[in-house]
Formats: sequence, C-alpha cells, structure tokens
Amino acid sequence: MRYIDAKDLNLIGKITPTPQLYHRVDTARYRDFTPNQNILVTEAAGLALCFKTNSSRISVHTYFHSMGNGANMTGINQYGYDLYIKKNKEWLYAASKAKLEKDNLLPLISNMDTSQKECLLYLPAFSVIDSIKIGIDEQADIESLPNPFRHRIIIFGSSFTHGTSANRSGMSYPLMVERDTGLYIMNLGVSGNSKLQQSFARVLADADADVFIFDAFSNPSAKEIEERFDSFVKTIRASHPTTPLIFMQTIYREERNFDKRADRYEQDKMDMAEKIVKKAMQYDKNIYFINPKNYTGDDHVTSTDGIHPSALGYYRWAKTIEPLLLTILKKYHIE
Amino acid sequence: MRYIDAKDLNLIGKITPTPQLYHRVDTARYRDFTPNQNILVTEAAGLALCFKTNSSRISVHTYFHSMGNGANMTGINQYGYDLYIKKNKEWLYAASKAKLEKDNLLPLISNMDTSQKECLLYLPAFSVIDSIKIGIDEQADIESLPNPFRHRIIIFGSSFTHGTSANRSGMSYPLMVERDTGLYIMNLGVSGNSKLQQSFARVLADADADVFIFDAFSNPSAKEIEERFDSFVKTIRASHPTTPLIFMQTIYREERNFDKRADRYEQDKMDMAEKIVKKAMQYDKNIYFINPKNYTGDDHVTSTDGIHPSALGYYRWAKTIEPLLLTILKKYHIE
Repeated sequence: MRYIDAKDLNLIGKITPTPQLYHRVDTARYRDFTPNQNILVTEAAGLALCFKTNSSRISVHTYFHSMGNGANMTGINQYGYDLYIKKNKEWLYAASKAKLEKDNLLPLISNMDTSQKECLLYLPAFSVIDSIKIGIDEQADIESLPNPFRHRIIIFGSSFTHGTSANRSGMSYPLMVERDTGLYIMNLGVSGNSKLQQSFARVLADADADVFIFDAFSNPSAKEIEERFDSFVKTIRASHPTTPLIFMQTIYREERNFDKRADRYEQDKMDMAEKIVKKAMQYDKNIYFINPKNYTGDDHVTSTDGIHPSALGYYRWAKTIEPLLLTILKKYHIE
Repeated sequence: MRYIDAKDLNLIGKITPTPQLYHRVDTARYRDFTPNQNILVTEAAGLALCFKTNSSRISVHTYFHSMGNGANMTGINQYGYDLYIKKNKEWLYAASKAKLEKDNLLPLISNMDTSQKECLLYLPAFSVIDSIKIGIDEQADIESLPNPFRHRIIIFGSSFTHGTSANRSGMSYPLMVERDTGLYIMNLGVSGNSKLQQSFARVLADADADVFIFDAFSNPSAKEIEERFDSFVKTIRASHPTTPLIFMQTIYREERNFDKRADRYEQDKMDMAEKIVKKAMQYDKNIYFINPKNYTGDDHVTSTDGIHPSALGYYRWAKTIEPLLLTILKKYHIE
C-alpha cells in the first residue's frame, strides 16, 4: 500500500479555519474556554474527509493527540472511523472500525472492485487528532472531492449534538440529517458544555452561516437559561442580524422515569426553555423553536445511560426533526 | 446504605446450575471448550437478579473476575448493569451505568419514592463476575422475587445473541423479546463461537427446555454448517426428541455492501443454512426455520462495525422475529 497525507484532501465540517487542521475551533484565538472545553472543541466530531479513489483497499494511519474513553460509548464512535461510499446518489455504509493505540494503523476495508468511488470518511467524534494518512493500493489513484453538501448550517449543542452514545462517529443526529437531506451541517457539539456561554457565542458570531441550529437547553439549568439566553442571542445577532436561529427543546431523559429529583430538574429546564424562546420569538421573527412531544418515541427503549440516546434514539431524533427543519429552511430557500 | 449479598436473591437466565453462581455453564463439568470459550460461557450475558425493595437508592458492589474491552461496544453493555422496574405491568427502564474497576462500587439510581418496587437487574453481558452485593437505604427492605417470566426457552447463538454492540446488557434481541412477550429466554450467546459444535450440543442436550432457538448460522462457514448440522441436531434430539428447534437464518452484514469477498462468503453461508434446515424439516416436523428477507430493514443504517447491529438493529431484529416466534410457539401452547 501507499499512504498519502490527508491534509491534501478536502476536509469538511469546520466552522472556521484553524492552524491545527483537525481542530474545530482555534483555541489560540478563543482563549476563554476551560481546559476541558479546549479539548472538546479540538475533538474531530462531525469532520469528514471527501475523496475519490479506485483502490480496492482503504486504510487509515492516525496519530492521536488524545482518545476518548467513556463507558457509555463504543470505541468506534470515540476513536474510530466511519466510511460511506456513494451508490445510486446516496451515501451507503461501507466500513467502521477502531483500534486503541495512539499511533494507529487501521485497515478499514478491502476486497472492493476497482471502479472510481466517491468516499465520505467521518473522523472520530471524541478524539483529538494530530495527523492522518490514507492508505490505498500501490497502483490506485486518490484525489480530493468537493464538498457534496449544500448551504452552511452550523449546529451548536451538548453531548447529544456531539454524538455521545451514538454507535459510530457518523451517526449523531446532525450527521444523519446531513446525509438524508444533502444539507451541510457543521457540528459544534461540546459534550456537557453547551450552556449558552458568551465564549461560544463569540465563536458562532465570527462564523459564516446561512442558519444556526441550537441544542441549547440540554446542559444549562433553568436558571442559567433564564440568565444567559438573551445575551447569547444578542452576541450572535450583532453579526448575523437576520440569520434564522432554530432552537430545539431538549429531549426527555429516561433517568426521569424513577428519579424524582432528575424529573423535576429536567422539567424546570424544559419549561424555562419554552418560555424564554417564545418570548424571544415575539420580537425576532427569525427565531424558531422545535418542540415535538417526543423526539425519540414514548416506549422508553432508546436510552443508553438514562441521559444519552442509543443508536435507536438518535435515529428517531433525526427522523423527527428532519421535516420540522426542512419546513423552516424552505422559507429561506434553503433546500 | 447497607449491602446484602445477591446470592440470596433470585438469579434467572441460567440453563443449568453451576458451582460458581454467576457462570452460565459449569466449565468443570463440560471440559472440551477452548480457553476463550471457557471465558464466554462464564460471562453473565442474559443473567438477571429479581428482587423487591422500597429503597430510594440502589447501588451495586461487584467484584469482577474479568471485564470486556471491545472497541465495538459500550462499557455499560460489557461491564455495566441495566435496571428495570415494573410499572403498569411492564418493565420500564430505570437506570444503566458502568465503571471500569475490578472492585467496583456503582451507585445505580437514587431519589426514588419509597413504594415497594419489583426490580429486574440484568448483569453485565461481557464480564465474568465473582460476587455482587446490592446496596439499599439503611432502613429499607429487600427480598427475592419469583421469576416473572413464563416457560423455559433456551437460545444458543453468536455475538448477536450474546449482545455485541447492543447499547446495554438488557438490549440484546433475546432480552427485548423476553420483556416484550413475558416468555423466559435463557441466553447462551457465545460471541464468535456458535459453530454447531458437539461441545455446545452436549450442554444443550442436558438442559431442561420447552423450546430451543438457534442463531446457528452466523459464525460457522458454509462447509462447517454442512458438516456439523445433522450431528448437532442428533445430539440434542437424543434427550429432547420432540422439543421444537427453531433455527434463525443469519442476518445481512453491512460489510457486504462493498467487500466482495465478505459478500460471497456470507451468501454461501445463508444458502447452505436454508438448504440444510429445509432438508431437516422434511424428516423432523418439530424443526422450524425463521428466514425473513430483512431482519433489520433495508436502509443500511443499523450497523455498528459492518457485522454487529446497533441498538437500532437489535430493536428491529426483535420486532421482526417476535410475531414469527409467537406463531410457532402457539402450536405448542407456549404463550
């Protein structure tokens, strides 16, 4: 096999350019994050390499700066790769694998025919990556592919957006919506840390976007929502006066079934979120609220740990919000 | 909190008694397994503790002999606990957590009301357990609960039966069917090692069962199926002459989408399985074949690693086979 540096291929999913290629945010420029947030914004969630090759095999040689190790997640999601190949105009699953070594040579797929294939390779969702090389057959070609997705939609949110407990890195709900609709969704999921902070509002304010989607009510308390919402919106509105801001209600957490304290805490959050977004919608006609009764069904079989949806939960979440999102986006001719 | 030894509670899911409480098979009695198979049959997949308590909190203190560490699985599935509490006659999700320490004190749930509750606590699916203590409020009661499930159904199979890549230990498809139908399903899933061997046939022959279900064609090659199927059935039939034997066709593996070699190998297995079971059905009217076109749908979104279904895949698998199984079992008044 021969290996080429992935820096020469098209990398999609980043809100802004960064000196370190596989980081989502430039932590030298935005300096008011906590140490944990610095790690989260440099994890590769939602990033993908786009390329075309006629190789019968694809390998990935990665040097990891750090690798996730959460008990509520697969290694494949945290430090693995998730490959799709275009077939009949759709992104068809091809391979997903993982290996827990910092210097990591991973054979991803082999025994393919040698026709030219368009590849979409999602990077690990919970790891910080220093370098990637793509391995192909000695005689095969590989070239960069333009971004296959349309428009610029940024989603900022919690572990749910980041993809905690999704089965693989391409199976967070934003990336499922991306492949289903063809819309380009840049993922700034920051597990446990999406709390309407000014630090994140400033990053978003500087970004170029046609639409912002927010999973903004999963991490903050009712009090934090009340105190921070207006100034969070204000910071973004300073540079994006009429860009649609779509806020999603947080989901029902299954830990509420028997834990009375969690039940009250979560209901207070949801009540405050509904109240505060509806108030904002009265003075800003480009603010929207997505608030389905159940994102993930009412049969209580979608939880991994009482908080995070399983693959089943994320699938239902994506299918629930797709028509709601598309209806809003159509008003802006984003389709 | 106070802790009681779980050996005094009702442990369900075991095919036969074993000297080591949390083992599924007595490896001192059945001595022709490989070292890897000795580990697999002593892992706690499908085992559950049944108890009643009015405690506001439940903790689990485990001493693990060994703990799983597969990159295609969550820790919660491998070395975590999965708790259900009865509500409106159904088993409702209550909590699932995991911690990676051999001597492992795990707070599972708190802040519950202090009504009496019937609890079903699935043990870790990919770990060997030496001892378990259950922690409750100092003043609370705890007592053993009779097995809530009916009849004796044994399922023998591969990693799919074992629950590889399920999101938690109670979410392998056999245990979903168990809770959905109320039928008692004892799980002898042995990841990667369900190959119609005589060693396993002898264990099953000695067991007391109303029905056997087999995920028997996921691990062996077409050649192994052809060579071993008849003698596997013969060994079981010697002690269970008319017990229904329900063989499931293996599932479509998503690695087949582009890997031509995997595609051929898997199709050969499926063709041989269909041929050999249909032949056996001609001379044994209590042999059945479950062979749906797609267990997990045809949208190619259910794979974790190209082989194992995600939580979405296992959910669809359970929902696909439930009516097929119930139709067969009804003939035997097993309902």
